[in-house]
Amino acid sequence: MKAIAVYQGDGHPSLVDVPKPEPEAGEALVRTLRVGVDGTDHEVLSGGHGGFPEGEEYLVLGHEAVGVVEDPNGTDLERGDVVVPTVRRRPNGANEYFQRGEPDMAPAGEYHERGIDGAHGFMAEYFTSPAEYLVVIPEALASVGFLVEPVSISEKAIEHAYASRSAFEWNPESALVLGNGSLGLLTLAMLGLEYGYDADRLYCLGRRDRPDPTIDIIEELGATYVDSRETPVDEIPDVHESMDFIYEATGFPKHVFQSVHALAPNGVAALLGVPSDWEFEVDGGAFHSELVLHNKALVGSVNSHVKHFEAATESLAAMPEWLLDSLVTGIYGLDEFERAFDDDDTTIKTAVQFSTYEERR
Amino acid sequence: MKAIAVYQGDGHPSLVDVPKPEPEAGEALVRTLRVGVDGTDHEVLSGGHGGFPEGEEYLVLGHEAVGVVEDPNGTDLERGDVVVPTVRRRPNGANEYFQRGEPDMAPAGEYHERGIDGAHGFMAEYFTSPAEYLVVIPEALASVGFLVEPVSISEKAIEHAYASRSAFEWNPESALVLGNGSLGLLTLAMLGLEYGYDADRLYCLGRRDRPDPTIDIIEELGATYVDSRETPVDEIPDVHESMDFIYEATGFPKHVFQSVHALAPNGVAALLGVPSDWEFEVDGGAFHSELVLHNKALVGSVNSHVKHFEAATESLAAMPEWLLDSLVTGIYGLDEFERAFDDDDTTIKTAVQFSTYEERR
Repeated sequence: MKAIAVYQGDGHPSLVDVPKPEPEAGEALVRTLRVGVDGTDHEVLSGGHGGFPEGEEYLVLGHEAVGVVEDPNGTDLERGDVVVPTVRRRPNGANEYFQRGEPDMAPAGEYHERGIDGAHGFMAEYFTSPAEYLVVIPEALASVGFLVEPVSISEKAIEHAYASRSAFEWNPESALVLGNGSLGLLTLAMLGLEYGYDADRLYCLGRRDRPDPTIDIIEELGATYVDSRETPVDEIPDVHESMDFIYEATGFPKHVFQSVHALAPNGVAALLGVPSDWEFEVDGGAFHSELVLHNKALVGSVNSHVKHFEAATESLAAMPEWLLDSLVTGIYGLDEFERAFDDDDTTIKTAVQFSTYEERR
Repeated sequence: MKAIAVYQGDGHPSLVDVPKPEPEAGEALVRTLRVGVDGTDHEVLSGGHGGFPEGEEYLVLGHEAVGVVEDPNGTDLERGDVVVPTVRRRPNGANEYFQRGEPDMAPAGEYHERGIDGAHGFMAEYFTSPAEYLVVIPEALASVGFLVEPVSISEKAIEHAYASRSAFEWNPESALVLGNGSLGLLTLAMLGLEYGYDADRLYCLGRRDRPDPTIDIIEELGATYVDSRETPVDEIPDVHESMDFIYEATGFPKHVFQSVHALAPNGVAALLGVPSDWEFEVDGGAFHSELVLHNKALVGSVNSHVKHFEAATESLAAMPEWLLDSLVTGIYGLDEFERAFDDDDTTIKTAVQFSTYEERR
């Protein structure tokens, strides 16, 4: 079968022929529909993140997948179920995090990540997975099911950040999303639709000139676009307002320090982006005292588990069609899969299509 | 009546004569027993923290008090009740934080702090307070009741830090207290007595040479003393182990950055110390990515409210007598009150005594 992989040292994706996988006991065979591309894929391609499966010269890419169960293989799934796979897998034997269903909390070395680190991904015509890591979603979401995984990352990050504010009465009213990529935009929509923020107190930071499709989406959502070139994060309280909640998805480490000053008292910033090492000068005293004197928190979050995939499915179902239509700027077949990896100012979210829900092979 | 106050520009405490206060409606009159001295008092004396009541040339010091109700004045209290006052008061009129009993979450400008900022403290023969801010404690704790307020600060900080870990199964087993002052030592004891840490996985950081009374207490508690001159915080995982929980009470801002690396995956650091501004270079990228990739959190916490004073009272009641005896290194009458403000390597915790529980005036 066809798959999209990166070879060691190559730096770009290739179409390869690999054997069709056979499900083992407890695993189902899934026919792949679509697999999304995100920044992590680009980091994997450049060698900046993740790693190859042991003994393999290539890694099948893709961790944002949606597919249809082709062979339930004795599991509780049914043929035809539309499913989204979670990403982390046990590397060898069980560990406590997988046992309690929280692989997202496993430390380095105690997990593989399919399509990222140590295990092949889902960019192939078929994949297998233990049934416990396949989340069934409604048929109606089959075409956008590849967005469930990225949205699940936000579900977890918001859950953990909000938990940090659960020891007192916290009524957040203003929120700032740092990053106008697809995940930032989806999260901006979630904050309005599900978390009760009024659109006029939602802000999204980017550094794009108008006209720009992401700015259009921000404004169509009723939120305010903040151009970081004009208004750095720590100046946002002066220009707009202080933020009860900040969602950092850019991986730009100066945002962490600026965010503490942009937060309102008792606010929290959820951190998701992963930067490289970078030394710079900060006012560590002001950073520290601001956290303490105003009861502020910073909460890092990585990956997600089945519960967050389920929440993400509900979030996606609640999103207006125009938003998902505007957000998904390209779906590419295997004949032009390279285009899914292009990244320019007209690209928001792309996916590779391996088959369609309607197909019966 | 006698009181201990600081005059503007003076920098040192003075014994002054002030009118005995008259309780207003809803307030009780309290005869002061003892009032503790802490680092905040020294910062107030040096002018580095807090402020004088409006229109006053002096500030009566003291925020760690215990007293006996002399006149309940129609409140629900009874004459003879041993009480500890909370610290924050409404500056003018009500605000939502005071209304819901969470003045510790009020932002700057929406509170006064008795003995610290904008309101006279408790270092006087008598004080008045709204009854709602007087926490009744057992008579048996009258002599150490001035420790309730500092312990309440830890109760809140631990509650908030633990809340940040409540969205997943977190079973902390190792903990590090940064700071071997009285609050650090009390917290170290609490972590062992109430939070289930085995003593051999408790650590306390200081920078003292042996023999030293704080090191003696750390080791009597069964915990491990870590000398920061030999083992900086970020090297603790190599020398000892990674920490599920870190409690930062020194206000040394480099600890914040080092702590993120000393935390075990999924760990949290509670921040309480308040530093001054200080610019220095950090690896902001490594700091940021470590927070994200290992689901770590930093939670700042200031002040506390009635619930935390009640929890602190229970914590104090559970502490062994030897610990409190070793910790309280000096109780000084008004004739030698200056000694309570001395600070050397033999001093752990001091208080000024205004009267004794047994006295009847």
